[in-house]
Amino acid sequence: MTGNIVSGYKKLLEKTKNIVALNSATAILHWDMETKMPPRGIKLRSLQLAMLRRIGHQMSTDHQIGLLLEEIMKHPEYGSMDTVQKRNLYLIKKHYDEQTKLPEELVVETSKQEAITIDTWKKAKAAKNFAKFKPELEKLFKLKKKEAEILMEVKETATPYDAMIDIYEPKMTTEATNKIFKELREGLLALLRKCETAPKQPNPSILKRPLATETQRKIGNLLADFIGYDTTSTTSGGRIDETEHPFTTGYYDDVRITTHYYPKMFASSIFSTLHEGGHAIYEQNLKQEWMFQPVGEASSMGIHESQSRFVENIVGRSHEFWTYFLPKLKMLTGNMLYDVELNDFVHAINMVTPSKIRIEADEVTYGLHIIIRFTLERDLFAEKVTIDELPQVWNEKYLEYLAVTVENDSEGMMQDTHWASGYFGYFPAYALGNIYSGQLVAKLDEDIVDWKEQITGGNFRAIKEWMIKNVHSRGNLYNPSDLIKIITGKELSVDPYLSYLNNKYSRLYGF
Amino acid sequence: MTGNIVSGYKKLLEKTKNIVALNSATAILHWDMETKMPPRGIKLRSLQLAMLRRIGHQMSTDHQIGLLLEEIMKHPEYGSMDTVQKRNLYLIKKHYDEQTKLPEELVVETSKQEAITIDTWKKAKAAKNFAKFKPELEKLFKLKKKEAEILMEVKETATPYDAMIDIYEPKMTTEATNKIFKELREGLLALLRKCETAPKQPNPSILKRPLATETQRKIGNLLADFIGYDTTSTTSGGRIDETEHPFTTGYYDDVRITTHYYPKMFASSIFSTLHEGGHAIYEQNLKQEWMFQPVGEASSMGIHESQSRFVENIVGRSHEFWTYFLPKLKMLTGNMLYDVELNDFVHAINMVTPSKIRIEADEVTYGLHIIIRFTLERDLFAEKVTIDELPQVWNEKYLEYLAVTVENDSEGMMQDTHWASGYFGYFPAYALGNIYSGQLVAKLDEDIVDWKEQITGGNFRAIKEWMIKNVHSRGNLYNPSDLIKIITGKELSVDPYLSYLNNKYSRLYGF
Repeated sequence: MTGNIVSGYKKLLEKTKNIVALNSATAILHWDMETKMPPRGIKLRSLQLAMLRRIGHQMSTDHQIGLLLEEIMKHPEYGSMDTVQKRNLYLIKKHYDEQTKLPEELVVETSKQEAITIDTWKKAKAAKNFAKFKPELEKLFKLKKKEAEILMEVKETATPYDAMIDIYEPKMTTEATNKIFKELREGLLALLRKCETAPKQPNPSILKRPLATETQRKIGNLLADFIGYDTTSTTSGGRIDETEHPFTTGYYDDVRITTHYYPKMFASSIFSTLHEGGHAIYEQNLKQEWMFQPVGEASSMGIHESQSRFVENIVGRSHEFWTYFLPKLKMLTGNMLYDVELNDFVHAINMVTPSKIRIEADEVTYGLHIIIRFTLERDLFAEKVTIDELPQVWNEKYLEYLAVTVENDSEGMMQDTHWASGYFGYFPAYALGNIYSGQLVAKLDEDIVDWKEQITGGNFRAIKEWMIKNVHSRGNLYNPSDLIKIITGKELSVDPYLSYLNNKYSRLYGF
Repeated sequence: MTGNIVSGYKKLLEKTKNIVALNSATAILHWDMETKMPPRGIKLRSLQLAMLRRIGHQMSTDHQIGLLLEEIMKHPEYGSMDTVQKRNLYLIKKHYDEQTKLPEELVVETSKQEAITIDTWKKAKAAKNFAKFKPELEKLFKLKKKEAEILMEVKETATPYDAMIDIYEPKMTTEATNKIFKELREGLLALLRKCETAPKQPNPSILKRPLATETQRKIGNLLADFIGYDTTSTTSGGRIDETEHPFTTGYYDDVRITTHYYPKMFASSIFSTLHEGGHAIYEQNLKQEWMFQPVGEASSMGIHESQSRFVENIVGRSHEFWTYFLPKLKMLTGNMLYDVELNDFVHAINMVTPSKIRIEADEVTYGLHIIIRFTLERDLFAEKVTIDELPQVWNEKYLEYLAVTVENDSEGMMQDTHWASGYFGYFPAYALGNIYSGQLVAKLDEDIVDWKEQITGGNFRAIKEWMIKNVHSRGNLYNPSDLIKIITGKELSVDPYLSYLNNKYSRLYGF
């Protein structure tokens, strides 16, 4: 390639690097807002975030980027660029095209409204008062709707909601999601019925034995160590803090997770630590040489969830893992679990029971929580339902799908932070992540036949290396559906995940 | 005033607001780097900070600012603008003129080098290895020297070092500092000799009784409450974290301090909490309506230190305060201090003893530590001493002024973070702060005659209100020397501070 195209490409990457660095700095301010910021700081913070969003938008829409892209893509030597370079160019162009269509004022306005809506949501949730939340959510939804309509044009999606999904799960559509969620729903409902009517039922009371936060913290550090997410050494690239809603944030050498410690639900911090730890090791094991390049990011939120839910559930709730870890847990908790048998413990942490709260849901009902949210978002953007009607429709769906009665909106449609944060279109990624994880595990079964025995032996290393090689280190080189196909050789399919669930739960429940 | 000048002024303030918001966001990233960041994050963080510095520099040198300033200042109605508006314009112009003269590459390069130098300093200090620190400090000094030479031209100061002082203490000069530090030094040395030869000597061993970190933390929260620095309520605008070197950072509604807890030096966290708390309440009580305006910032670092050292020493080490607080401390610490008499305690926390470490120094020797640093900085910029020679010259000065022998550079010239952070010219502000605090207290004595009795009664409120009215709420409306003159009616003078010290220590030491 001649100097011309190489230097243009370098210039583009330099501009991208600044955008990525800015975003990673903004992420720290978000993390701080959720974990450390004094309460009175909220107004100043939302102003800072809006300003950084404005700067980010200006950097992303820099006219120079457009000129450089055109120059490179029309260059006679464009064809001889390699896959990574072409993918970078594709991703830079996609981002540039989308951002230039979004007016700066809309972007800044949305950022400001998000901060207000999150703050209002927290207060409204604490007060179980949807009326307080409603006007701010309506304002935010209006802005997000406008964004969706603009992005629909650029992304050439069928509907505005498709454009929202595409933000988190590139190339995924409402239609495809409808189809696969239908299969998922049927599979899950059938399995749920089997579990509910099985003669063998778990005893969850052992999970309610009280455990001090300090001990839970120690357990969390051990679990992080197990998956190779170092949070304590002098060369650590991670840390664990406490928030009501656990999350992961960060980039390469600084990736942070949060969890919550409930003294009377010690399993909650165990599984949220494993879940977020699964996200964290994905971010930490992106290819080092791709840092600050578009290919050096995760492929999608669905692929991210495949990693977190693999670590949390497929590994973290397995008989094999607890064969290894229960003795350690018993030691760490003193006398608390002295009388608990391995099988009873594993059944308890996998108890299938329809519930109201998504983040505490078991693997079988989890997908149903997601499908409800997907349905509502879809209908919201299609104007078949209004923000005002959300609580009622939510409660009806919960009764229909899960046969539970929602008593108040704080345990209903206000339970999650996503809508308050403007993350419309994100929810499908959770269920897609489960589906992807099923496909990945089917392939892992072939490649490392004794991976379960390795876990029994307390060894996560080879499994992690497999994930790094197949998923993490590939970054954003492929769209999620392509990535899955490249790794497994198969198209998106719900079957492996349903068959994993059926195998696991038939053994647990004895049907 | 016509719309023209008003709208131009508004536009200028809007631009300033963005710069201030960016700086306050950057401050959070610095805070995070010192308190929470996983160790491996340092490279990414220094890149983020350099990029924000670049953006900040671009915003500060926006050509539009220059045009607006010219338009307004040449406007026939300029004369009818009020004091606040004129001061804002003066400060905006000063900042703009200075920043436009500093090349962007120098600013960014300096930011990157600062991050590296701080990191190297930490490691070198731990390893007691100046040779490791030296090359990075030399690189940083070279950049700061260049900055000083450029700023000298714009600020029209006599020397490059004067330009550095002016950053932290506007309009203060090397010449004036030489003069007042000479008086200070003589006063302090005379007082030191009296204390050393006095028959009545304190028993500092009571301060070495071990005290758990958790208890020290509780004491810190109580002290913060006493001065009205709320760090615990749901409407709090502050927080206390832990770092080796305590500091304060933040802006209006989000002002954070750090302290350190040494189990065998419990007084250390008490006084660093009071010191930083003094800084914090200054920032928190700037005039709300001036937020994001140049006048809505502290007047200078010297005035800042006058506040922190007033709270730490004049209040926090007074007989009056401990009359009130010692019983509380005794209660909080169980049996630890059961046998300690008030007078003995107050004498112990005011023990005058030449030492090697500035931040643990008493009020009498503290100024000497500063004068040594000032002398070295001054000579460094005048090329009378090199970075290479610093440790040796440092050790000689410590022997000369304080008669102490520095064993290694970690307790010598590497003890402070300032030079590693690029804060050349900052040190004089500490001693000037003491001098200002002396003048302020002389006036406080006139205005609130019973202020000491109020402290004995556990009441800091009226004193704080006096400081808010006279100092905090005036923000950056005046340069420090003007501010002191407006409040006290007097020119800068070392006498009130020396007389405060002589009164206090003659009573303590009985001479």
